[in-house]
Amino acid sequence: MTERTKIILDESEIPAQWYNVIPDLPAPPPPVLHPGTLQPVGPDDLAPLFPMELIGQEVTGDSYVAIPGEVMDVYRLWRPTPLYRARRLERALHTPARIYYKYEGVSPAGSHKPNTAVPQAFYNSREGTKRLTTETGAGQWGSALAFACAQFALDCEIWMVRASYDQKPHRRTLMETWGATVHASPSRATTAGAKVLAEQPDSPGSLGIAISEAVEAAGGSADTRYALGSVLNHVLLHQTVIGEEALKQFSQAGEAAPDLIVGCTGGGSNFAGLFLPFLREKLAGRGSPVIRAVEPSACPSFTRGRYAYDFGDTAGFTPLLKMHTLGHEFIPDPVHAGGLRYHGMSPLLSHMYELGLFEAVAKPQRECFAAAVTFARSEGILPAPEPSHALAAVVEEAKRCAESGEEKVILTALCGHGYFDMTAYERYLSGEMTDFELPQDRIDAALARLPGAG
Amino acid sequence: MTERTKIILDESEIPAQWYNVIPDLPAPPPPVLHPGTLQPVGPDDLAPLFPMELIGQEVTGDSYVAIPGEVMDVYRLWRPTPLYRARRLERALHTPARIYYKYEGVSPAGSHKPNTAVPQAFYNSREGTKRLTTETGAGQWGSALAFACAQFALDCEIWMVRASYDQKPHRRTLMETWGATVHASPSRATTAGAKVLAEQPDSPGSLGIAISEAVEAAGGSADTRYALGSVLNHVLLHQTVIGEEALKQFSQAGEAAPDLIVGCTGGGSNFAGLFLPFLREKLAGRGSPVIRAVEPSACPSFTRGRYAYDFGDTAGFTPLLKMHTLGHEFIPDPVHAGGLRYHGMSPLLSHMYELGLFEAVAKPQRECFAAAVTFARSEGILPAPEPSHALAAVVEEAKRCAESGEEKVILTALCGHGYFDMTAYERYLSGEMTDFELPQDRIDAALARLPGAG
Repeated sequence: MTERTKIILDESEIPAQWYNVIPDLPAPPPPVLHPGTLQPVGPDDLAPLFPMELIGQEVTGDSYVAIPGEVMDVYRLWRPTPLYRARRLERALHTPARIYYKYEGVSPAGSHKPNTAVPQAFYNSREGTKRLTTETGAGQWGSALAFACAQFALDCEIWMVRASYDQKPHRRTLMETWGATVHASPSRATTAGAKVLAEQPDSPGSLGIAISEAVEAAGGSADTRYALGSVLNHVLLHQTVIGEEALKQFSQAGEAAPDLIVGCTGGGSNFAGLFLPFLREKLAGRGSPVIRAVEPSACPSFTRGRYAYDFGDTAGFTPLLKMHTLGHEFIPDPVHAGGLRYHGMSPLLSHMYELGLFEAVAKPQRECFAAAVTFARSEGILPAPEPSHALAAVVEEAKRCAESGEEKVILTALCGHGYFDMTAYERYLSGEMTDFELPQDRIDAALARLPGAG
Repeated sequence: MTERTKIILDESEIPAQWYNVIPDLPAPPPPVLHPGTLQPVGPDDLAPLFPMELIGQEVTGDSYVAIPGEVMDVYRLWRPTPLYRARRLERALHTPARIYYKYEGVSPAGSHKPNTAVPQAFYNSREGTKRLTTETGAGQWGSALAFACAQFALDCEIWMVRASYDQKPHRRTLMETWGATVHASPSRATTAGAKVLAEQPDSPGSLGIAISEAVEAAGGSADTRYALGSVLNHVLLHQTVIGEEALKQFSQAGEAAPDLIVGCTGGGSNFAGLFLPFLREKLAGRGSPVIRAVEPSACPSFTRGRYAYDFGDTAGFTPLLKMHTLGHEFIPDPVHAGGLRYHGMSPLLSHMYELGLFEAVAKPQRECFAAAVTFARSEGILPAPEPSHALAAVVEEAKRCAESGEEKVILTALCGHGYFDMTAYERYLSGEMTDFELPQDRIDAALARLPGAG
């Protein structure tokens, strides 16, 4: 029998349900608060922005939510995704470790983001929404939502941070090819954008401003709503298809359970999507993997942030979320992993981190790109800068195993490809890429401006 | 039972052999001639450029060639590739036709090209080659060879047409990430390149010049050889993995045989790879598909070229190939499907076209991009400009079926994704893309310069 390189499931093995970890936790996560009243927000507060089904999923106590047939029909365009055994990487590293990666880059948008964009578009469509608005930084989330909206005949309007809009015209064209309208943010299409432009006509924009514009545009009309690509509970819920498939594939690969699960974290949804089903098994006494989040050292919310109530956006327009945060006014240095440049973290993951359910490390970007190039030359696939953070931790652990002789079983999520990130690779290969120091006083200054602080 | 969207084979179902159509043809293809002696070339003429195994495969009379285990190990990184039923495209077109596409864009290089780059790198490695040289226009072939060389620890040196080198820096970075050295052609690294630069310092280059440079660089040292990405018999042979897999998948989909097989043609390898195994079945009385090549109307070698002996390159350095050609000095207008901008055609396919084994049509590029956008908005995947030509013919046939009510079964090859071709999509969406007229006198003028003509 030949050694298998990848485990591919049949379409019939796509999970029928998403997994909700909350009922399995020893304590529920703290509520989201209204910034004016400091009282928990209710469904009515969120109804102008989200369809009722998603508001319900945000707070559900059910362990499982059935995946609708219409969503499954679109998932089948790329799911189930393959689980690879990284045999060539193992040989390149001379390691006795067995390395597996779940590859989400096979989706049309090239990342895990469509796993939640598709159900969000579907539920909106079913509840009468005609148009969805959102913001995008590097463009991964905007691409995913544009694709999903095309599948359900929804209009899609995207505010893309001006700096990315100018630097990444190809991402913008991708969204337009799927039919979306893309604005450079700040834009004159909203009051929030026009206000910024009046003060600073050449503003490069920020994710915070773009969120304000997309939220304002959604509030303006009854048939328009807003969509968010990470952080929230329903987003993490939808991403559990990754881990549910990986669980089946692990078993088909003849492995009992991983010894280590590694994922990169920006808002946390890709990492959560992979590990939550494995954590359910661990809590039930099946396997005992170490679970490790990897964040950029330029934006280290878990490892150097504070667990506190903070705004989700820079401008302070959102409800208050209890999370690991560097302060909503913290602006991370321009590392190439744009998807990890977020001051906060999923409140659910933050709660679980406090409960000791996983650990976290931070990595500088050059170490991540070194791992990505090693990976590309052995496994072929070019990783996006974001999962290259997870790969750096995998390579580190595999080398440790090469020294100790341990045959650890390592599982990671390769949440997207890097074919739209060639500028970053060019800078790495030419030696022009730099790492960034993050002095403690910058973090302290941002944390001093937390709501209710000081 | 749910309707299946894609048929995915297990790794164990990757074909064990490549299929050679030549013994099944009613007449053998004409020989390749030495341009000086006009006598058929022999193995010794080709040995400085190619390893003996590939020279043998070029002329073999065997119906099957076994795929080596080392090649299979690399194929497993992305093969078997999925066969999709394009249900969403069918609905968008309101057609009763059943449309299937075999998707080769899941390879690391994003196209079908690694199917031959990997065995070419392997055989070279086994016969002691240390370095491979090649040319690339749009960059698909160069990417594939860079990836393949990384898998067998070969050095890879690529001459990339200057115009593409400047316009497509991301393709270049992709090749460099896999470890290749990329020269802008014309370059000072070869006598041929230096000669052009002496006459025209700002030359934008051409595929012909790049071939001359790569061939010269291969001839210069004993451990260096040259690799070609289309046209030759051994390349078509390797690509038959596409059709062999599709045959199995078709049967698993519950379909007897396609009524129509459609593929795009530049040098012909992707089209041949898909249809040759189906033709074998047809010749044996199993199924009777119509087989249709689609070429760009800016470069119509089948539909408006002449079947004659001609050089494979612009400069006239190669042996003489009997093929459908527009004349080796014909320079096609700059359509975005760079992979189809070749004056000639595979000699084997040309021979088969003369035997009436398939038909050919030509399409202007805007019709192709219209089909590509319709496809992207329904099926998600963004097609490369090359297979968009096949999609234009598929859409045309599906619309015909919508009128006639015929439930035709259509099969096509989606040989690559378009994520490195966003500039072309941007031009199409903005209305800036033009079609090109090709007056007969331009073709006549080029044909008048055929070797031995006039």
